[in-house]
Amino acid sequence: MKWAIIATWRMALEGVQKANELLKNKESSGDAIETAIKMVEDFPYYKSVGYGGLPNENGEVELDAAYMDGDSLSIGAIAGIKDFKNPISIARKLSEEKFNCFLVGHGAEEYAHKNGFERANMLTDRAIIHYKNRLKETVDKGLSPYAGHDTVGMVALDSNYSMACGTSTSGLFMKKRGRTGDSPLSGSGFYVDSEIGGATATGLGEDIMKGCISYEIVRLMKDGYTPQEAADKAVYELNKLLVDRRKEAGDISVVCINNKGEFGVATNIEGFSFVIATDKLAPTVYVCSVENNKTIYEVATKEWLDNYMNKRTAPLKLK
Amino acid sequence: MKWAIIATWRMALEGVQKANELLKNKESSGDAIETAIKMVEDFPYYKSVGYGGLPNENGEVELDAAYMDGDSLSIGAIAGIKDFKNPISIARKLSEEKFNCFLVGHGAEEYAHKNGFERANMLTDRAIIHYKNRLKETVDKGLSPYAGHDTVGMVALDSNYSMACGTSTSGLFMKKRGRTGDSPLSGSGFYVDSEIGGATATGLGEDIMKGCISYEIVRLMKDGYTPQEAADKAVYELNKLLVDRRKEAGDISVVCINNKGEFGVATNIEGFSFVIATDKLAPTVYVCSVENNKTIYEVATKEWLDNYMNKRTAPLKLK
Repeated sequence: MKWAIIATWRMALEGVQKANELLKNKESSGDAIETAIKMVEDFPYYKSVGYGGLPNENGEVELDAAYMDGDSLSIGAIAGIKDFKNPISIARKLSEEKFNCFLVGHGAEEYAHKNGFERANMLTDRAIIHYKNRLKETVDKGLSPYAGHDTVGMVALDSNYSMACGTSTSGLFMKKRGRTGDSPLSGSGFYVDSEIGGATATGLGEDIMKGCISYEIVRLMKDGYTPQEAADKAVYELNKLLVDRRKEAGDISVVCINNKGEFGVATNIEGFSFVIATDKLAPTVYVCSVENNKTIYEVATKEWLDNYMNKRTAPLKLK
Repeated sequence: MKWAIIATWRMALEGVQKANELLKNKESSGDAIETAIKMVEDFPYYKSVGYGGLPNENGEVELDAAYMDGDSLSIGAIAGIKDFKNPISIARKLSEEKFNCFLVGHGAEEYAHKNGFERANMLTDRAIIHYKNRLKETVDKGLSPYAGHDTVGMVALDSNYSMACGTSTSGLFMKKRGRTGDSPLSGSGFYVDSEIGGATATGLGEDIMKGCISYEIVRLMKDGYTPQEAADKAVYELNKLLVDRRKEAGDISVVCINNKGEFGVATNIEGFSFVIATDKLAPTVYVCSVENNKTIYEVATKEWLDNYMNKRTAPLKLK
């Protein structure tokens, strides 16, 4: 029996551990994805997803999410939704719709309300301190405030060879109201086809959507590239294209798996982390580095893992 | 001197005629696209774009638009914006932003307001009659109300070998509030790279985004396919994929040009029309039919053209 799940960033670990149990019990890739992403959304110390996510320039937490079923290619997506607890579940529910599967702003909130999804004020005291400090450190000094855009994205393969993927994010910290990145955009933030494989991206959405990188990776896997080859090729070619045309490229990181459960990862930044679990590999966090247009990764050390969590839970003071 | 512009649907004709004059005068592909799409947005009898566009289920006209620069790959996009006159101009302005280039809902309206864009109530008396009649004919009888999703999409090549593309639409008639189709989504509704070519799509956005068809066509042209081969291959492969996985495929129509000014068109419906103008061909409307997974097109007859406009301007009665 074969299964696999891969996810962006260390923050996905607890979710992937739970999803791995579900996949081991022959549950579906869709249930594994939704369960895992909900856990990331619910954890208050992750600053870029769900509860505790950092707000836009108006101090509001606006959330984006998407879900895709690799069998039917059904997609559900939301952008700029406020005050709902689990965006990934709303996106998954929307994927059942033939029409109106991507809703934004108030329309997304109306749908979530009418379908009984749980309300919550997603702004934490901690996020308010981050927001106020950021204003003081950047806007008050005439500097650009934009930072932080760590989407949780996951792709899973279940024991029935069905695949699914999902994304969830509070988007760019200090973004303008209504700003949408790549996370809810098919082909940019995510793409999955159970007969090939799936991919998901995190980084500067404005640049990721210039290359439709998740679709590109799946297409490369269809053409015979291994997931690792596909990920490296897509990331470094897009990075080069952006540098050639624009002089700079934003952060781009991707993870992918094919329908055999083989995985790939690529990034144009140092320190990108990801989590992988398969029938042969217990849930493991890896940390990436870049060498000559290849992505290298190593198992995260205990020190790295402790640092990661300490940094996120350290007491915060208003500056 | 070489130039070309292609656009979806007969409704683009007047805009393409004007754009053709601009391109002949060595003006930029971006100015040609914006000018042409504004003309479609401003014409009150086109029911699916700008002023006169058909409303959502709440009777509100919500508009989506996008603009892409094929040199820099800069993208600007808006979704679910109300009460602004020219969505394409807002999208183009957003393409100058490094961050926050895709805005939805109120955020898009705030940006447009702050940047001085013209306000307008986009709902016409004629659209109100269409809306009330549609409610009576469908919702009141328990039938699905969804119909009509004719996006204007254009791709242009200018005499400096720069390319640009744009889309504008009021989206699916009777859509849910906040529904977003493929038109503002990079890779699905549009994509352009001045070193290769560009493509744009119209049809059921929910299905078009399952295949990232505009990106796929550009990628095929990069791999050496002619625009016509790329368009046919992308449309019929996506159509087959959707039928295989979902038993049915929504409407999908595309137009594209490469950076030599050669064009392609493909559709899975009868009667899709498009407009093309180049340095060698005066603005011409063609009408498509489908034979064995190939798209055939003929110059629109005078009768067809008269019919088209008569149908759109005929007196409307409340049922």
